[in-house]
Amino acid sequence: MRVGVIGATGAVGKELVEVLAKRRFPVTELKLFASTRSAGTKQKTPFGEITIEAYSLEAARHLDLALLAVSGDFSKAHARALAAEGVAVVDNSSAFRLEADVPLVVPEVNADAIGDHRLIANPNCTTAILVVALEPLRQAFGVKRVIVSTYQAASGAGAEGMAELERETRRVLVEGQPAQNEVFAHPLAFNVIPQIDSFQPNGYTREEMKVAWESRKIMGMPDLPVSCTAVRIPTYRVHGEAVTIETERPVTAEAARAVLAKAAGVRVVDDTAKQQYPMPITATGQDDVEAGRIRENPVFGDRGLDFFLCGDQLLKGAALNAVQIAEKMKVGVPA
Amino acid sequence: MRVGVIGATGAVGKELVEVLAKRRFPVTELKLFASTRSAGTKQKTPFGEITIEAYSLEAARHLDLALLAVSGDFSKAHARALAAEGVAVVDNSSAFRLEADVPLVVPEVNADAIGDHRLIANPNCTTAILVVALEPLRQAFGVKRVIVSTYQAASGAGAEGMAELERETRRVLVEGQPAQNEVFAHPLAFNVIPQIDSFQPNGYTREEMKVAWESRKIMGMPDLPVSCTAVRIPTYRVHGEAVTIETERPVTAEAARAVLAKAAGVRVVDDTAKQQYPMPITATGQDDVEAGRIRENPVFGDRGLDFFLCGDQLLKGAALNAVQIAEKMKVGVPA
Repeated sequence: MRVGVIGATGAVGKELVEVLAKRRFPVTELKLFASTRSAGTKQKTPFGEITIEAYSLEAARHLDLALLAVSGDFSKAHARALAAEGVAVVDNSSAFRLEADVPLVVPEVNADAIGDHRLIANPNCTTAILVVALEPLRQAFGVKRVIVSTYQAASGAGAEGMAELERETRRVLVEGQPAQNEVFAHPLAFNVIPQIDSFQPNGYTREEMKVAWESRKIMGMPDLPVSCTAVRIPTYRVHGEAVTIETERPVTAEAARAVLAKAAGVRVVDDTAKQQYPMPITATGQDDVEAGRIRENPVFGDRGLDFFLCGDQLLKGAALNAVQIAEKMKVGVPA
Repeated sequence: MRVGVIGATGAVGKELVEVLAKRRFPVTELKLFASTRSAGTKQKTPFGEITIEAYSLEAARHLDLALLAVSGDFSKAHARALAAEGVAVVDNSSAFRLEADVPLVVPEVNADAIGDHRLIANPNCTTAILVVALEPLRQAFGVKRVIVSTYQAASGAGAEGMAELERETRRVLVEGQPAQNEVFAHPLAFNVIPQIDSFQPNGYTREEMKVAWESRKIMGMPDLPVSCTAVRIPTYRVHGEAVTIETERPVTAEAARAVLAKAAGVRVVDDTAKQQYPMPITATGQDDVEAGRIRENPVFGDRGLDFFLCGDQLLKGAALNAVQIAEKMKVGVPA
């Protein structure tokens, strides 16, 4: 299959190429596209050394599959035209996620929404990590309210975010200087920043609202009350999420643990006697979302549940989920 | 006034001495006590260089005020005997916090509980930071449920915790080696650890239950449903808290902001247009708890409120609150 990665030099773009190889996606030809600045440079990949090209519809229209890891503006300008050529397009930006005619998919939850669509939106990282655990709990116990506090890694701001965290932590530790910031709104080293993306009139950030909007669409629960506090912390590439839910029916920690143990895409890490629970250092590079700290939350009587998730922001939060979507699409079949 | 700091070489002990000086507590004589290992060494303080002594009741009984920053076991063994001598004792450990005959005090909330008591317990750091904001909101709107997720700094594990964070971050960054851990259950550098203190049979940690138990006692609401997820993150000395409450009466963000703006011990930092909100880098070394990200939480209809707090764990979370208690006690007055 002829596959193109658009935005190939970014953190997600590079991870997409790795995931295609790791999952043995049937790639017969791989094309890498990036900005004109990178065009002509070579990138080493598991598929050999590939010369980066500047994107054009002409250069991409023969592809069977295009994976977009670019800005929402770029996606808006190019994704529909590409899909209209019959290319299967998975878009990692927020451009189409809430469009009625574009499915928003986490395959473990709503693979059946893919159908014959040529353009599929890949959700926000925090949402993807959340719903793989939330959906099986909904099926078992019903979900009435969702409250999430996040511990989000620098990689959510791309390779530049990760580089800034490393550089500025070094500045603080080695040079004894205050951390600086260009990518993030404030210095991130040894700090937390309770703002991700821009503020909305209701006081929530866009990132926080994405978790509500996108979870509702993916789970097919347009009225589900979801509230999120999204916080950037000094970790590299794994998002943590402290989740509280009120269920429709009585729930126990034991029953919830059994449900999550059987859920695809989830690995239960919840042995408190051995001090095992989800953590960035164990979830890094792992496909499955770690779920643990599963316990009954008395704030909602016998219908409250708390749990903690850790998921690799670049994998389930981005590249892995995009390739999983592609695996379910009718790729290489004329539209 | 003759003041003794017991546990003077630890992170909280040192901060106690600084706070006594900064608040111009009427110290006429300062005695510093620590383990026999440190006895005989000298410590520089704003009150001059002081030789550390090993603790004995004999050496401490003449004090007017004793501030204890020691283990719960040490406090259990010595605090009541010292108070029985007529010394005003403020204990920073968890030893007496839930004892019926010992007030647990955050002066902005329940200074009147101090009365003639000679032994007062200083609450858990996360609790102290929480209730200075929670109590004024309760007075204005009532509080029905409280859900907290914490972003807790290394200083909660003392000076050793802060040193381990610095040393291990250096090991990762400069030596390129995996972080190690002795103080914390797992490496903390570029990681989060969703466990603070030991696990209870209900799946919550002791730290999480302390927030529930102690908030209820301080606020005089023995049945208040409180749930906490306590998470250690790689910051030095400021705890962050993402708080969701359901109020008894309708609440708006604007009204809540006005209430918190007038609350003692709280500084509202909540200008989203200027990207101002509570953060460890701004709350470090500050007496007031920063409160921001104040917004209506639709999960509880018109009775939901979200906010984010940052408080210096060594100040309001420990030393400052202890000295504020001492300021309200009848110190130097025979029992």
